[in-house]
Amino acid sequence: MIRPGRTPLHIQLADIIRSQIESGVFNAGDQLPTEMELMKQHELSSSTVRQAVLALVGEGLLYRRAGKGTFVAKRHIGRDLLTFSGFSEEAVTRGFRPGTKHVTVDWHPADALVAAALNVPTDENVLTIERVRTIDDEVVAVETVSFVAAIGLLMEKLDLADTSLTEILERQLGVALARARQEIKAGVARAKLAKALDVSSGAAVLQIDRTAFDATDQVIYFSSSSYRADRYIYTGWIERTSASIAQPRQLIGGSR
Amino acid sequence: MIRPGRTPLHIQLADIIRSQIESGVFNAGDQLPTEMELMKQHELSSSTVRQAVLALVGEGLLYRRAGKGTFVAKRHIGRDLLTFSGFSEEAVTRGFRPGTKHVTVDWHPADALVAAALNVPTDENVLTIERVRTIDDEVVAVETVSFVAAIGLLMEKLDLADTSLTEILERQLGVALARARQEIKAGVARAKLAKALDVSSGAAVLQIDRTAFDATDQVIYFSSSSYRADRYIYTGWIERTSASIAQPRQLIGGSR
Repeated sequence: MIRPGRTPLHIQLADIIRSQIESGVFNAGDQLPTEMELMKQHELSSSTVRQAVLALVGEGLLYRRAGKGTFVAKRHIGRDLLTFSGFSEEAVTRGFRPGTKHVTVDWHPADALVAAALNVPTDENVLTIERVRTIDDEVVAVETVSFVAAIGLLMEKLDLADTSLTEILERQLGVALARARQEIKAGVARAKLAKALDVSSGAAVLQIDRTAFDATDQVIYFSSSSYRADRYIYTGWIERTSASIAQPRQLIGGSR
Repeated sequence: MIRPGRTPLHIQLADIIRSQIESGVFNAGDQLPTEMELMKQHELSSSTVRQAVLALVGEGLLYRRAGKGTFVAKRHIGRDLLTFSGFSEEAVTRGFRPGTKHVTVDWHPADALVAAALNVPTDENVLTIERVRTIDDEVVAVETVSFVAAIGLLMEKLDLADTSLTEILERQLGVALARARQEIKAGVARAKLAKALDVSSGAAVLQIDRTAFDATDQVIYFSSSSYRADRYIYTGWIERTSASIAQPRQLIGGSR
């Protein structure tokens, strides 16, 4: 129940609606109760209700359609900036249902980018698995993962269509994934990628390149993934450490 | 000097060229010595030289122009995924010269997004500083930073045109920045933003929203920045922790 106190009423109401969305009381596409209904239900003024709703619209949790009302937006599928987890694994943690729509598996000579990442000659054969990934049956990403031959030979015998590669590596092949170097870029989807992601040509995509290492610092895979920017967002907490200001005088000079 | 050994020759050569680029022996736009020159200089075969150059093209450090040769690409300006640092501060650390081309400072009522982030009513006045940021005199980002009134009143009296806001907060105002919540998204630049960033309409941008807190968990600012995707990239190492696989059985079920 909402009571006057230290936390402003509109923030209390926004918190309640947010938790109703998170807990599934309201789902994506559901219409929110009207302003009048919310006023009655929570014994609040219209300006308080409006402020709470606007804040949630601002956060992207709700959207308004003129003359129709306020609706619950599709959730962005968050990914954590700081943890090294697989697509399926992280989706499940966040309450989504991951899947695969299409998979191709083939051996071909490494191109320059893959060869550099896997630390092999450019003409060496690598196993590449390309998968069109879904969340709750909606296509959200295209993932291309390349493995060095030693691991590729083991991987190709397994069912790769609809299983977490992270899990196959860790549980079936006994690989101890330890750390990864990750690059996050922005790009636009054209032609083939746009079609695969079911977006218009020119739509924004988040591009994640990842080079994964095991506990002995051997490269295990290089993956290059394109996520629909309207569905994916990378979030995380970052800490300020005074160590990062190494040379304050130089910094002052340089920043002018 | 390159010697046969555990590390393949082409990787040794790529490492040498990479370090020459990083140390400034070669600069952006410089033409690389020809394949023949590199073969003579390092006593290597043409296939080894070609493989090294192709790997660096794949990494984006070099680019080839048909009939002209191989050139050193403009470096992507990396930003660290894991540290909470300011634009100027991080640029200086990476050897770039940060600057500001244009700045506007004004008070206006917080919109829903800013109000939610700063935890103030939507009609409260906040100080918003918009700056077009440069690296080595090239426009690379548009930053919009909003401050709650108490800090805005102190900020607006200072020279904001060409100084690190992080530095003003920490050194001049004595604010102890502690942590921030960061969101990384992809988008496309249209109209006003495209013009400000000096890119074509429809070009990709990395969008970073950050809500910064001090050591007592008070919100200090909310910033929303758009970076040219052709110049910026977020990179970092992520660690695998077995704790992230909370419910393995459920994961297997969910990933199918």
